Amino acid sequence: MSGPARATAHASSRAAVLDVIRAAGTISRVGLINATGFTGATISTVVRRLIDDGLVVETGRAESTGGKRRVLLQLNQSSRYAVGVHLDHAGITYVLTNLGGSVVARMSRAGAGAEDPPAVVERMAGEVGALVEGVGVGRERVLGLGLVSPGPLTPTSGMRLTPPLMRHWEDFPLDRALQEATGLPVVSDNDATAAALGEHWSGGVGASATFAALYMGTGIGAGLLVDGMAYRGASGNAGEIGHSCLAVDGPRCWCGARGCVEALAGPSAVVAAARADRALARAAGLDGGSGRRRSSVTADFAAVTRAARRGEPGARALLERSARYLAVAARTLANIMDLELLVLTGPSLAIAGSVYLPVVREELDRAFFSRAAHPVAVRLSRSAATAPAIGAAALVLQSELVPLRQGLRLPENLADSEPAPVERSSA
Amino acid sequence: MSGPARATAHASSRAAVLDVIRAAGTISRVGLINATGFTGATISTVVRRLIDDGLVVETGRAESTGGKRRVLLQLNQSSRYAVGVHLDHAGITYVLTNLGGSVVARMSRAGAGAEDPPAVVERMAGEVGALVEGVGVGRERVLGLGLVSPGPLTPTSGMRLTPPLMRHWEDFPLDRALQEATGLPVVSDNDATAAALGEHWSGGVGASATFAALYMGTGIGAGLLVDGMAYRGASGNAGEIGHSCLAVDGPRCWCGARGCVEALAGPSAVVAAARADRALARAAGLDGGSGRRRSSVTADFAAVTRAARRGEPGARALLERSARYLAVAARTLANIMDLELLVLTGPSLAIAGSVYLPVVREELDRAFFSRAAHPVAVRLSRSAATAPAIGAAALVLQSELVPLRQGLRLPENLADSEPAPVERSSA
Repeated sequence: MSGPARATAHASSRAAVLDVIRAAGTISRVGLINATGFTGATISTVVRRLIDDGLVVETGRAESTGGKRRVLLQLNQSSRYAVGVHLDHAGITYVLTNLGGSVVARMSRAGAGAEDPPAVVERMAGEVGALVEGVGVGRERVLGLGLVSPGPLTPTSGMRLTPPLMRHWEDFPLDRALQEATGLPVVSDNDATAAALGEHWSGGVGASATFAALYMGTGIGAGLLVDGMAYRGASGNAGEIGHSCLAVDGPRCWCGARGCVEALAGPSAVVAAARADRALARAAGLDGGSGRRRSSVTADFAAVTRAARRGEPGARALLERSARYLAVAARTLANIMDLELLVLTGPSLAIAGSVYLPVVREELDRAFFSRAAHPVAVRLSRSAATAPAIGAAALVLQSELVPLRQGLRLPENLADSEPAPVERSSA
Repeated sequence: MSGPARATAHASSRAAVLDVIRAAGTISRVGLINATGFTGATISTVVRRLIDDGLVVETGRAESTGGKRRVLLQLNQSSRYAVGVHLDHAGITYVLTNLGGSVVARMSRAGAGAEDPPAVVERMAGEVGALVEGVGVGRERVLGLGLVSPGPLTPTSGMRLTPPLMRHWEDFPLDRALQEATGLPVVSDNDATAAALGEHWSGGVGASATFAALYMGTGIGAGLLVDGMAYRGASGNAGEIGHSCLAVDGPRCWCGARGCVEALAGPSAVVAAARADRALARAAGLDGGSGRRRSSVTADFAAVTRAARRGEPGARALLERSARYLAVAARTLANIMDLELLVLTGPSLAIAGSVYLPVVREELDRAFFSRAAHPVAVRLSRSAATAPAIGAAALVLQSELVPLRQGLRLPENLADSEPAPVERSSA
């Protein structure tokens, strides 16, 4: 038993040191000892191996503070890469990041639409190949592929709990298919969680390591980061703020409940309401739902947003109503998580964020439960459209850089390693 | 800089080892090495000191698995104690626990009511003295006093954001006053968070270390435990599910928002509705709000619950309506946290839990967003009335037993300890 447990401890000390170096930018070995609590001998060994593997480089010396000038270490940013893929009905976004999480290439292609899953996977494999070859990075330096999607995905198999527009992906073993098609290890997560990770890794949230990313794409969700780690809950489905009830007898939602904010005010609801108003549908250039080409919710939502910007009062009213509902849901989320920072992100907020931002801000300023203790800062993401893909790549990097504490939980096999566990006495 | 940082690392290795021993019940030194990732030398040193301090004892040997039989270690349960105090308008509950968190004495006394804060503190000091002396524990073996209350309390000073019934406690330096009056170090937290900790420490939730305690006392709140640690958010106010909006144009809540579940369906709302119905108020034995003695919300809520049990249809209807709202708020909480377990606790659920439990269960079975991935178990606490006080004592014990990872965060003073930090490159 001690073999695997020790291997985990070693892997995690390496990962912890890498993550501290990444977060610090540059740091000395003494700095690493202070930051991790490891002994000097451990730091020395781990750092030597990281340098041997090319992941870390020495980068000059700190200025003297009286004693010996200390050698500074930093990540060798271009030693490894990760692919991030954000798969959605409306579009597929790809990024290639270096070891520090900086984007070195990105591209957007047509969404999954109504295509058959195997055909989409084949196309994705070709597009990933083009992304990596386009910047001349050797395949052997790509650590893996992070895949994020609404769904959410289950950790080991295909997609489940799929939203209506992707129902035909249900039970398709997407991870495995993509792994076979690309030859890269695949890790997956849901898009809202990835968006939060992406905001954190791309530096969009400054020093804040505990915050929520309120994500609006085709649906509404949230990604939760606590101390820089994604909070995923029991099954990777944490953050489903879109299914917060704002009206106990409200309209039925596809999730089975009533009055969910997504059903009341999500992009699909906005588009449906716009289509139901003939004059508005015409003014916004929507096809009335009976056109030959069924456009995506995101594209239709963008059309409504453009109509609102042109001063179309019906479109403006729809968006403001949606924003008010989203703001109240954001308040519930802020009250439960006691947030200091909320980032508005995702494709639909990339389009209409300027309408939503002031309404969410006003609601939190006025009615956040703990406003006497602190305000909640609300920001529009600087990378609302690509944050999920960046987060997808970060998932891969985290598997190399995962913070130490993951390795420090009481192992589940502890009972096995203890021959005669005595029952714990309790009250 | 390295001085304090090292001290923290040492303190936290001691705390981590203590916590692993507590969680395991009995464990060998080899087991500790596997569980913590520390070296044999570190474990040997830390364990020797814990034994010298009387906190840990050797307790025989494990059965042989071929090699040498290993010495087992366990907490010396009666070496240290902690006092837990749950202060509420309606009652004050006291517990004394041993180092393992088991309750060795408990008592309930009159609530804070309308008394002046200094008078209440003086009374509390006397009651704490009686509690400790009653079981013959020397004052020097009491680590400290955990104080929990609705409020929530701020970490360093008095109570703020006080609910309406305790408004006269606002800005009173409760922690300091109680510390002076008892001579014990005081740590404080809000009652819902403490209730979750109490459920965890009293073994009421089995192996689940990630769950929410839905707390209903005078108001509605929730305590969130993630991997056995309280999730407190930015200011200790996480879990404020009582201020989830269930009706955007609903009744105004004391928090400033509209349609909060606490305003729609909390014990105060139930009691107010019962009082407004003369026949029901008479049947339930409520004084109509104009009696000489103003009874507590909890006592009145208990009277309505008794009326419902006697078959009074109006009382039954009020409780069922309240339960339905609470169930929908519980679903929002479960969707955001992706819960596997929800424990119903707190004084009002100790009284009326049997009405609320089936309604919350039914709602989560039917409409929890991730029900295809896993169910949410809903349980009624076995110690709904004392869980907050047990959790208060656990706060004190955690300051001795705090898991290691708290000491492993990148220290905020890292920049200071690094003379010349180079700006991190980003995209």
